[in-house]
Amino acid sequence: MSNPIRIGIVTVSDRASLGVYQDLGGPAISDLLHEILSCNFETVAKIIPDEQPLIESTLKELCDVEKCCLVVTTGGTGPAKRDVTPEATEAVCDKILDGFGEQMRAISLKIVPTAILSRQIAGIRGSTLIINLPGKPSAIRDCLLAVFPAVPYCIDLIDGPFLTTHESIVVAFRPKKK
Amino acid sequence: MSNPIRIGIVTVSDRASLGVYQDLGGPAISDLLHEILSCNFETVAKIIPDEQPLIESTLKELCDVEKCCLVVTTGGTGPAKRDVTPEATEAVCDKILDGFGEQMRAISLKIVPTAILSRQIAGIRGSTLIINLPGKPSAIRDCLLAVFPAVPYCIDLIDGPFLTTHESIVVAFRPKKK
Amino acid sequence: MSNPIRIGIVTVSDRASLGVYQDLGGPAISDLLHEILSCNFETVAKIIPDEQPLIESTLKELCDVEKCCLVVTTGGTGPAKRDVTPEATEAVCDKILDGFGEQMRAISLKIVPTAILSRQIAGIRGSTLIINLPGKPSAIRDCLLAVFPAVPYCIDLIDGPFLTTHESIVVAFRPKKK
Repeated sequence: MSNPIRIGIVTVSDRASLGVYQDLGGPAISDLLHEILSCNFETVAKIIPDEQPLIESTLKELCDVEKCCLVVTTGGTGPAKRDVTPEATEAVCDKILDGFGEQMRAISLKIVPTAILSRQIAGIRGSTLIINLPGKPSAIRDCLLAVFPAVPYCIDLIDGPFLTTHESIVVAFRPKKK
Repeated sequence: MSNPIRIGIVTVSDRASLGVYQDLGGPAISDLLHEILSCNFETVAKIIPDEQPLIESTLKELCDVEKCCLVVTTGGTGPAKRDVTPEATEAVCDKILDGFGEQMRAISLKIVPTAILSRQIAGIRGSTLIINLPGKPSAIRDCLLAVFPAVPYCIDLIDGPFLTTHESIVVAFRPKKK
Repeated sequence: MSNPIRIGIVTVSDRASLGVYQDLGGPAISDLLHEILSCNFETVAKIIPDEQPLIESTLKELCDVEKCCLVVTTGGTGPAKRDVTPEATEAVCDKILDGFGEQMRAISLKIVPTAILSRQIAGIRGSTLIINLPGKPSAIRDCLLAVFPAVPYCIDLIDGPFLTTHESIVVAFRPKKK
């Protein structure tokens, strides 16, 4: 039996990392991934403060050392001074995929007009797809479900493992070979 | 009574700054802000040519010296060589909020297909939100009304003053505290 | 009679440039341009591998030497390692027009959820508009038809020639003069 696919989850929050606030975002992502994915996988979870160098080193570790094919962050994407998750993500990525941020904001905008304040992005580092999600569990769900149909094929294209989904939750789209 | 909230308005136009063309954009923004806002505020208006260093220094002055919590520009966002307002805005901002440009273009696209030519952006400099608007008064109105529901909360998040609106025109959205 | 308007078409594909794969994207663009445009024009077509320096030099040549007012690329816009067309485009452009990529992804997203993986952009180099299109002929058609109503006016604004269209296919939008 093959090794499980590895997926990183990074909660970026000053308060959660100090323990003064319970991390709700990380467990929400983990639960949702278990709902979505039908393949064998395990998660590697981190809770860190809103410090750009630390976010960058955590992302690099999850990509390069822990060999996660997907890393999902929660928190730190707003306009406030301490919000630096997109900056850290951009700094460690080879390519930015603007379509993820656009679609996540478009989906969130149907729910709250403040969706335009979110700077969440996604990008590629080596063979890893990194996706920023918002901090709030309900927004995490809306955003990740919106983009997930494209995630397995994206990971195929960057030479990652073959992800499969529970089709009642998410139908993974893979174009027919040319 | 507290000091009025300060809002900068910058008309960027070679012709308007030379006086060969009446500035319609600046007054349109001022009128619209008076329609929208129910709090005590005053505007600081500038009319300058399409010169990137001058746009940058004007934006910095309105943010850092005039202590405006919001600066709105009009003009200079197209593809022409002299259009450099977004470049100047990006140069002085700490963070860019892509959602503003996306939403303003999406709204304008329902009216004119050339909306995709607009490069208007928004960003944060310190405790100031800077928003680029188009040059045409009707497009100014469409764009500013589209994004304004998110503006007061954005200014809360960057430690600015508490803006209130006339709810018949714009309902300011503030999420409930976590 | 005036010289024909010149339009560059660049197929970016390792396999097509080696001849192991027939170039379908370039001819699809050429055919579509003949459907759309009613003005006198000629195309300058290139087929090159996914090498960033070569894409950059090809784009520069088509803009600066061949004097194309419009250059359209196909291929190389995905998340894979060899996909570098947007990087090359950004490197040679003076301005990026985010609205093109946003609209092309929004249109494609109605057809396939993997549209968010496309990093296609458009930008201005001197008096040339450069537009990245996807590789697949049907997606080329969807994307180019979606943005073309804004293309003639964009080329007006950068001091290019006056493009006219067959209005049964594309209605070119030009705002009335202020």
